[in-house]
Amino acid sequence: MVGSVGNGLMDLGGREKAEPLPKEFDPKETVDSLPHSESNIVVGKEENGTSREIVLGRNVRTMCFEVKEPEADDEITGEREAYMAGVLARYRRSLVDRTKHHLGYPYNLDFDYGALIHLQHFSINNLGDPFIESNYGVHSRQFEVGVLDWFARLWGLEKNEYWGYITNCGTEGNLHGILVGREVFPNGILYASKESHYSVFKAARMYRMECVKVATLVSGEIDCTDFKAKLVQNKEKPAIININIGTTVKGAVDDLDLVIQTLEENGFKDRFYIHCDGALFGLMMPFVKRAPKVTFKKPIGSVSVSGHKFVGCPVPCGVLITRLTHINALSSNVEYLASRDATIMGSRNGHAPIFLWYTLNRKGYQGFQKEVQKCLRNAHYLKDRLKEAGIGSMLNELSSTVVFERPKDEDFVRQWQLACEGNIAHVVVMPNVTVEKLDYFLRELLEKRSHWYQEGKISPPCLAAEIGEDNCLCFLHSK
Amino acid sequence: MVGSVGNGLMDLGGREKAEPLPKEFDPKETVDSLPHSESNIVVGKEENGTSREIVLGRNVRTMCFEVKEPEADDEITGEREAYMAGVLARYRRSLVDRTKHHLGYPYNLDFDYGALIHLQHFSINNLGDPFIESNYGVHSRQFEVGVLDWFARLWGLEKNEYWGYITNCGTEGNLHGILVGREVFPNGILYASKESHYSVFKAARMYRMECVKVATLVSGEIDCTDFKAKLVQNKEKPAIININIGTTVKGAVDDLDLVIQTLEENGFKDRFYIHCDGALFGLMMPFVKRAPKVTFKKPIGSVSVSGHKFVGCPVPCGVLITRLTHINALSSNVEYLASRDATIMGSRNGHAPIFLWYTLNRKGYQGFQKEVQKCLRNAHYLKDRLKEAGIGSMLNELSSTVVFERPKDEDFVRQWQLACEGNIAHVVVMPNVTVEKLDYFLRELLEKRSHWYQEGKISPPCLAAEIGEDNCLCFLHSK
Repeated sequence: MVGSVGNGLMDLGGREKAEPLPKEFDPKETVDSLPHSESNIVVGKEENGTSREIVLGRNVRTMCFEVKEPEADDEITGEREAYMAGVLARYRRSLVDRTKHHLGYPYNLDFDYGALIHLQHFSINNLGDPFIESNYGVHSRQFEVGVLDWFARLWGLEKNEYWGYITNCGTEGNLHGILVGREVFPNGILYASKESHYSVFKAARMYRMECVKVATLVSGEIDCTDFKAKLVQNKEKPAIININIGTTVKGAVDDLDLVIQTLEENGFKDRFYIHCDGALFGLMMPFVKRAPKVTFKKPIGSVSVSGHKFVGCPVPCGVLITRLTHINALSSNVEYLASRDATIMGSRNGHAPIFLWYTLNRKGYQGFQKEVQKCLRNAHYLKDRLKEAGIGSMLNELSSTVVFERPKDEDFVRQWQLACEGNIAHVVVMPNVTVEKLDYFLRELLEKRSHWYQEGKISPPCLAAEIGEDNCLCFLHSK
Repeated sequence: MVGSVGNGLMDLGGREKAEPLPKEFDPKETVDSLPHSESNIVVGKEENGTSREIVLGRNVRTMCFEVKEPEADDEITGEREAYMAGVLARYRRSLVDRTKHHLGYPYNLDFDYGALIHLQHFSINNLGDPFIESNYGVHSRQFEVGVLDWFARLWGLEKNEYWGYITNCGTEGNLHGILVGREVFPNGILYASKESHYSVFKAARMYRMECVKVATLVSGEIDCTDFKAKLVQNKEKPAIININIGTTVKGAVDDLDLVIQTLEENGFKDRFYIHCDGALFGLMMPFVKRAPKVTFKKPIGSVSVSGHKFVGCPVPCGVLITRLTHINALSSNVEYLASRDATIMGSRNGHAPIFLWYTLNRKGYQGFQKEVQKCLRNAHYLKDRLKEAGIGSMLNELSSTVVFERPKDEDFVRQWQLACEGNIAHVVVMPNVTVEKLDYFLRELLEKRSHWYQEGKISPPCLAAEIGEDNCLCFLHSK
């Protein structure tokens, strides 16, 4: 078991559970006192003031590969090279295993970029603005702008109406969109549902913005009744809203039209800025026929999406598109770059645009549509099998995120790399997740679960609060 | 000539210079009206209210590679694959050329990562904290922590005293360091010399911090007399200071000891936070014997350095190290990641730590020391040759950035990818910049220059204001 966990290289020895840490999580403490623990349990604070144990991952300190100063005769003996080659080969093997057992994150691991291998050793950097060539010539802006045009078209903006760039990750897209919102409405209040990505609340703190958390429905969508109540309390200040096009945990899609309606009916017409966090579903939704459209034809300010998720890039990246009119206020020219500074980061990975360009060209709208359909089909398959087996589970419409009862064993969670929160876990069905992989997972889950619950002698927890009574299959709600 | 510019793929036709744009730079305007311009000239505003033309790079719109929807029969004909392979092959050829002619940016393009090629197709992501394993198993934290330990040791912090992570670029390091400073002193004022990297001023704006620009000496170093004057005006608020370990344009190293002394003598003892922006020289200085030491034994709060510069990673990255005591205030636990959120970005490129680990292991302290010596030697060689040829130039002690008269021809600037500001340009001598490459550059420069100045009939500009009278070789100062 231990061998299949983590990097597959280290026997971590003891299997004892870590002691709960004191309230203030102190990683130094962890380093010193918990060198062999499999995971760290800390105490998280709920909004209502109660506290709850949450499980953090293992302390990496115990398994890191030290950098060692070469010996004087290393070049002659070749020992150093051999040592490094050995570490890398074992690491590669562990990556194969870890990639095979991956289910919890919305990363499409099904890609073949063999055609790009000869570009990997160039130091490609798109520092500065995508549309203005910097003096550094080893860049890939030609690909980047092609990719941005494609996304702008997808979301309903003309070439001369948009500005955007390829980011490092979903967080950078959110940081940028919310910053643009703040520059448009400097005294605006940031509204975001409590199930928004943590980067949204980080942005509020970084940018010193007033932030109001809005309640959610059981599905995970923003609760517009609560939203209205909170808007009415803050009528004097403009609203900056983060809309989730797929929440992180439940894959719930906020109702953009209802949010706009709520704003306009409550005196916020022309006094709001909407950022759409489409990290995952931003690229899936356009291909689902019955889905409400995310488009700049509606009064939104920016949309972001991740490139390493549904698209399947092997490096973290994302796309941010906003209205060109918004960006002039934000940017300043940087002479020594011979470019403009309107991005959050300075140096920007120039390989990511090539990966994206390559995939978009190969798959096209039609290719993505087929993959989205496959993901939704397989997600339904998983949810149906779970329900058949008596396991409470939920699948939002428009979503490929299947939420279900949290497995009771942290090793199993780690083995399958499931993302967990409280009593629930989720599997995000990406194009690389086949029915065979799901069957393999289900077999293991059902086998283990019969031990956890002693073949039905112990009853599983009630999940009504997390996934609703209709989806819960606990003793009470399965009747 | 055109063939060697940019991506080498497009003949841009007309060679006419762009008309100066109106004061407010409007990229939309550029897109519509300047499709064939080689560069954009905009008007920048100086601090004293005067304005000055600055040259921006070419508009990328004119040469981008469109993403096209595949035809229905593409898979059968193979035309799409052939088209893409053609674009990529030509692009690769242009990268070879652009890499060969690169002098202006501090990127070490001398690396061989062949041993890592088999890892390139894994989606390696270190999302969350480096020290706490997230549930996503395809990561490289084992390498990341090894690299961080190495840097912490270099800068004088023990394993249990530091926190840090591998960033996406120098900007992320500065954004993080300054954010930590602001969290330590929420009402602190940010001080930075006017030659600091633009990301420092961007941070002030993002974080809504009061920011005071400090004057510089001719060398580019912070002027501590002016610093003192500005401190004294703001005695009531703590100070957060950005120190440049190598300014971007002149490669000047701020005098850390004098800055600390100025703070302590003016009533700021225990009321300041210093972030050291060591994007380039942060890793070179430790290997220069006579250089003042950047170390956490002195009262500094954080240091950042870039990984794609001196170290020579093929992807933009950097390292940020801070004191562990500072980070607890900043971070919060993110349950669904099973990790902690103390980084600026969420998803983080997992390939970068492996590149760094590989290079540090191969080169070690001794290897870096040799390379630093070579860079300093070659930088002196370049400066001496320029002076011999009657070209005003400057090389700061401890620096491999040679500043000199700006070439009069933008094509030449672009060809050699020089970074320019006002009347000056610079070459940053990195390990991949050999004497042969410098000689090639010098030959071209001298040949062109004799045309620009009509073999001495026109006199070159005076650079005394930029590089000092001693280094200027204009008609007046060469006597």
